[in-house]
Amino acid sequence: MTSTYDVAGLGNAIVDVLAPADDAFLLKHNIAKGVMTLIDEFRADQLLKVLEKGVEAAGGSAANTMAGLASLGGSGVYVGKVKRDRLGESFSRSMKDTGLRFAVPMADGGASTACCLIAVSPDGQRSMSTYLGASRELTPADIDEADIAASSVIYVEGYLWDAPEPKAAIKKAMAAAKKAERKVAFTLSDPFCVSRWRDEFRALLTSDIDILFANEEESKALFEVENFDDVLQALQVWNGTAAITRSEKGCVVVRGSEVHVIDAVAVKQVVDTTGAGDQFAAAFLFGFTHGKSLSDCGRLGCLAAAEVISHYGARPETSLKDLARKAGLL
Amino acid sequence: MTSTYDVAGLGNAIVDVLAPADDAFLLKHNIAKGVMTLIDEFRADQLLKVLEKGVEAAGGSAANTMAGLASLGGSGVYVGKVKRDRLGESFSRSMKDTGLRFAVPMADGGASTACCLIAVSPDGQRSMSTYLGASRELTPADIDEADIAASSVIYVEGYLWDAPEPKAAIKKAMAAAKKAERKVAFTLSDPFCVSRWRDEFRALLTSDIDILFANEEESKALFEVENFDDVLQALQVWNGTAAITRSEKGCVVVRGSEVHVIDAVAVKQVVDTTGAGDQFAAAFLFGFTHGKSLSDCGRLGCLAAAEVISHYGARPETSLKDLARKAGLL
Repeated sequence: MTSTYDVAGLGNAIVDVLAPADDAFLLKHNIAKGVMTLIDEFRADQLLKVLEKGVEAAGGSAANTMAGLASLGGSGVYVGKVKRDRLGESFSRSMKDTGLRFAVPMADGGASTACCLIAVSPDGQRSMSTYLGASRELTPADIDEADIAASSVIYVEGYLWDAPEPKAAIKKAMAAAKKAERKVAFTLSDPFCVSRWRDEFRALLTSDIDILFANEEESKALFEVENFDDVLQALQVWNGTAAITRSEKGCVVVRGSEVHVIDAVAVKQVVDTTGAGDQFAAAFLFGFTHGKSLSDCGRLGCLAAAEVISHYGARPETSLKDLARKAGLL
Repeated sequence: MTSTYDVAGLGNAIVDVLAPADDAFLLKHNIAKGVMTLIDEFRADQLLKVLEKGVEAAGGSAANTMAGLASLGGSGVYVGKVKRDRLGESFSRSMKDTGLRFAVPMADGGASTACCLIAVSPDGQRSMSTYLGASRELTPADIDEADIAASSVIYVEGYLWDAPEPKAAIKKAMAAAKKAERKVAFTLSDPFCVSRWRDEFRALLTSDIDILFANEEESKALFEVENFDDVLQALQVWNGTAAITRSEKGCVVVRGSEVHVIDAVAVKQVVDTTGAGDQFAAAFLFGFTHGKSLSDCGRLGCLAAAEVISHYGARPETSLKDLARKAGLL
């Protein structure tokens, strides 16, 4: 069945706000250095006011992935919830600028658009304060079954599982994808997220997921094992395709007895690892929806990850399409 | 069928002679710094005289492996040729000290016992001058078919393929092993060795080899590919067991659709990588001949490699048996 879109991506729609901040600033505003803290709306408002020189950029894991897909020349739909406020308009504009379809109606009331306030220290450390706001209000009504059915793959961010309405929305989207005989891809998102939802994620593996994305820590958390090889053994008996990223060790791609061990692409300097997993998934899915072999999908993923860790920010700054062509992968 | 020995190892019997040497010494004696050079008997005699303060230690790749096997409590036979001269006696004594059987008759004439003269610079670099001497004179008559038939596995060093008589000896040993329904293990030894004998080694894969040891470069040379994943794909369709070492990336063990990706064991400091592959093979074969799973064989291999690269010298300095027990692998 032909499809209109390569990928429909579902995730928390978040605007990143980056601002320089010294230790005195972090201390004054009670921001824990170098970690990610979830915050409420009141605190988000406070911090947004003091970070007035912040640079805004659309973020969110699956949204970053979709932007990477667009950078490769892929087509897609993004599904995530923002409010009709300044940050929501900014997020919406940036998604549409990439050429992706983004048609989820903005909320007119309720929580503000999600934001991740990133204080960047002079030493390069990033202290993140995340307010999930409107992104948690994605509901089944926001799922356009026709868009899902028109996409070769739907790609779901595990983070969404943390709130009841987005979880119901995911279930509706997965059902629509299955009905249209589309593939369901899922990213585990975070080892803590896996700990919270391990049993449900493992049930999803059996019932719904065709393609699993995870980094090494997340995959170990999923199967509750300590050695990577035990992850590999569990994946080999699972009836799906898994792509596990391993930082400087590259990735391992598994589909039953088919196993690929792909080396990382060398980078001159690792500047900021934010977005590595998101861009890996982007390029892997581009390859997957364009008839590439699993090993080439893995290579494309490693190439995109290498680009994004070479600079600040979670989205590509160079055309991934050009990079992939130069590497002989397209 | 029960066996008397775990492994019969065939290789070049070489005595290492290590001596400190500064740059002026290297220059005076025309020794190329940091590399391995093959030398003739005349030059070996000359250098042995000037390196009179050298420390002698039995070496040779398969001999190192057999010493590692003994350190794990394994039993074995070593097959290699020395002359009845001072170094030959020294080699023979050191092999017997490990508890291994070493019954190949010493040559009474011909070339001197092989030696590898290792000049160790103050900066830690090792400049090696290797004289193969008597080790190249291993003949089919030196192969005791009863010893081979009494060993669960025979382990053959690819380096032996470089001379006609040792090659004939290997063929006889492999035939004896096959007849007794024993396993044939083979190490590719060196990327240059693989380049010289690629077609014959690939034919051996089909006809004789049950267990292949190689490092990443050797395996790429064997299959003439540039990516490790292409090696993996070639090994998955081969009808045997392969253990490929990847330095800091650990190892990958393959038997058809069974694939294990095993991480390297962390070491405080890499002092000298000599013997890493030899000790990996030792511990892998110990596991293999003691009913361990392929993944545990790989883990044992990585553990032994980590021990030997933590100090100078190609043989274990700590009991590998104790290490393996502490790691819960025995």
